[in-house]
Amino acid sequence: MIEKRTPLPVGEAVKRVMDYSITSQKEYVSIEMTNNRFLAEDLVATHDVPSFDRSPYDGYAIRSVDTTGGSSSNPITLQVVGEIGAGFVFNGTVEQGQVVRIMTGAQIPNGCDAVVMLEVVRELGNGNIELKRTIKKGDNISYQGEDTKKGTVLVEKGTRINPGIVALLATFGYSQVPVAVKPKIGVIATGTELLDVDQDLEPGRIRNSNTHMIMAQIDRAGGEPIYFGKLADDFDTCFGAISEILSKVDVLITTGGVSVGDYDYMPAILKKLGSDILFNKVAMRPGSVTTVATLGQEKIIYGLSGNPSACYVGFELFVRPVLQRAMYSKKPHHSKTKAILAVDFPKPNPFMRLVRSKLSNEGSRIHVAPSGLDKSGVVSSLSGADCLMLLPGGTRGYEKGMEIDVLLLEDQQGSEWPWNNIVPSYK
Amino acid sequence: MIEKRTPLPVGEAVKRVMDYSITSQKEYVSIEMTNNRFLAEDLVATHDVPSFDRSPYDGYAIRSVDTTGGSSSNPITLQVVGEIGAGFVFNGTVEQGQVVRIMTGAQIPNGCDAVVMLEVVRELGNGNIELKRTIKKGDNISYQGEDTKKGTVLVEKGTRINPGIVALLATFGYSQVPVAVKPKIGVIATGTELLDVDQDLEPGRIRNSNTHMIMAQIDRAGGEPIYFGKLADDFDTCFGAISEILSKVDVLITTGGVSVGDYDYMPAILKKLGSDILFNKVAMRPGSVTTVATLGQEKIIYGLSGNPSACYVGFELFVRPVLQRAMYSKKPHHSKTKAILAVDFPKPNPFMRLVRSKLSNEGSRIHVAPSGLDKSGVVSSLSGADCLMLLPGGTRGYEKGMEIDVLLLEDQQGSEWPWNNIVPSYK
Repeated sequence: MIEKRTPLPVGEAVKRVMDYSITSQKEYVSIEMTNNRFLAEDLVATHDVPSFDRSPYDGYAIRSVDTTGGSSSNPITLQVVGEIGAGFVFNGTVEQGQVVRIMTGAQIPNGCDAVVMLEVVRELGNGNIELKRTIKKGDNISYQGEDTKKGTVLVEKGTRINPGIVALLATFGYSQVPVAVKPKIGVIATGTELLDVDQDLEPGRIRNSNTHMIMAQIDRAGGEPIYFGKLADDFDTCFGAISEILSKVDVLITTGGVSVGDYDYMPAILKKLGSDILFNKVAMRPGSVTTVATLGQEKIIYGLSGNPSACYVGFELFVRPVLQRAMYSKKPHHSKTKAILAVDFPKPNPFMRLVRSKLSNEGSRIHVAPSGLDKSGVVSSLSGADCLMLLPGGTRGYEKGMEIDVLLLEDQQGSEWPWNNIVPSYK
Repeated sequence: MIEKRTPLPVGEAVKRVMDYSITSQKEYVSIEMTNNRFLAEDLVATHDVPSFDRSPYDGYAIRSVDTTGGSSSNPITLQVVGEIGAGFVFNGTVEQGQVVRIMTGAQIPNGCDAVVMLEVVRELGNGNIELKRTIKKGDNISYQGEDTKKGTVLVEKGTRINPGIVALLATFGYSQVPVAVKPKIGVIATGTELLDVDQDLEPGRIRNSNTHMIMAQIDRAGGEPIYFGKLADDFDTCFGAISEILSKVDVLITTGGVSVGDYDYMPAILKKLGSDILFNKVAMRPGSVTTVATLGQEKIIYGLSGNPSACYVGFELFVRPVLQRAMYSKKPHHSKTKAILAVDFPKPNPFMRLVRSKLSNEGSRIHVAPSGLDKSGVVSSLSGADCLMLLPGGTRGYEKGMEIDVLLLEDQQGSEWPWNNIVPSYK
């Protein structure tokens, strides 16, 4: 058991985790099931858009040359020789003096080089129309490829699929879509004090909330949580269970038992497993006891704090980017932005502090305030949090109106590396 | 068929839809399945938090009176009479001169009124500890109810469940959680030109992308999409199918066929169904032909444009808030905020224009730019969109640096009514 631990700066801890990587496989799923999945290949335009010259309006396809000299004093009469609904094509070629009635989206017939809208012609009732203007070649034609050329990469591999991307997948014929297999993340809780959610409270005990919270965080991050239950604070039981679970998953998250208390067996278990400890103390609040270890080439074990807020923050900082990158994301970290502190935050920050917070906008300016009391035991502050304030270590307190850094918890844009321009957290 | 239509201002159109409501039923689902669902009842604290006086640290529970006069020159010796791990309780009462070793989270034993941290005592090795300071009553005790009182409403009915809320549900014993039944939304596409996603392109035809996109939008909005297929442009076929589908769903979305072209049967079908048309033209671009009709007390029929961008915008403006409110949301509309235009947008806006756009932050200031060309046929602009710019009708064009309104597509905060302070869109 390690009694004296040296805290690692947060940015350094994130970097150590990210230096070690797991990778998802690719699988094909039906387009209906792809919202929120991650593309495992670039989405490429498989044809031009439009794929043929088409009409953007309901109107008449014409030969522009036939309208030469047309004006209100010199109306041109043209003969309607056909009608094309969207999805149909006109067979043959339109000859001099002829037009074809055409619907929005339909293909321009051979021989025609412009479209006139319905509103600018007069239907003469005898199969002819009258036009009182001269039309230029190309008027009202959407040309093949003018929107998108075949072969263009429209969305990069590793992008999370949203409804607009689903539209592109459908347009280009991706009925089966290559997506990253959801990383399977094992979750266990340790702690004799923990009751199941459906159990009544007992003296001295609390219900297990962390694993349910983490499973929802895994879901939000795009992974697949697998719950392996709740272990008592007993070394042999924990060791046996963890060894077995590690043969089934690539990532295991445990909560609790990582501190230096008499019942905190995780350090000893990690040692007996022969794992490499990346770190076991981070210069941050909450979550300083967060432990991350690796086993062989592709297994990561997270020992998150049993404290709910510390557990939450530990997941978002150290687990989420690993999952995102496993699914090929090029921006696996939470988006970072600046925000104006909406209230005083007088507490000094000996370590980097991550405060569960809520954004609000005033005009085009982003404001932020803690979503609850900043006590790490206060589970209620998590429910309204949509960001984490980052208050660098070694700072004395912040005043309303100061500009600070925040990590956005629900934004999908992500960032490549959020830490480079934050004041070092621990000196 | 209605040939001459009067465009309704966007805000008025939204209001007409929202004056008509559908309501979800309540169902109970296991806590593991609740992320992103909507609470059908308030989440209430079913007990105090903490539910007992507990220790926030590993240390010794003491009687503060025993430490009176303790200092470095007057060390106090106390007898360790027990040890409590988290989840266990100390039976009996701690008497004068006695202490109990206590772990983080464990219940304070009877007789004790303070905790001293491990670091400040010296273990004498004979079952005694030595303390060189005077401890005040209440030091290092987390008192019952100091975080949350039993009966407090922690999260309101209608809130979308996130990982923090899952933690609260677990803490308070909600193993089965009351959530809103996902509204079932039927989706059909009309248009002979449409190919299925897995079909090869043919001259004059395009693949059906709209229904796949809408199903993903329904999923994002928290509803359950049901795809009823693709109908040809034929009145009798469409009418028969739509009549039958309406007996199975509360909301039906059709795409295409709502314009005034020769093959646009939706207006006639809505008339024959005996539905009430709320509007069939909106003063907006894209999506001016958006049609919404109601049938009886609780059925809404949306005729969205066949144009992908118009279809997308029509869903987010007119369908999403109906779904959100059906699931009890008190803020069913997209959050609205201001943003700084990052590029010139010189186009005049005869009608309110909704531009698919992408946010970026500079410092704490929100910036926005179109996510693609603003041509309503350009499907590729949808993939990067995370907001819609709102450019009021009757405006001449906007310059870089101007502050404009945007609707956030992926934000979960929502808003009650986003239109009150936007310039009227149509004059």
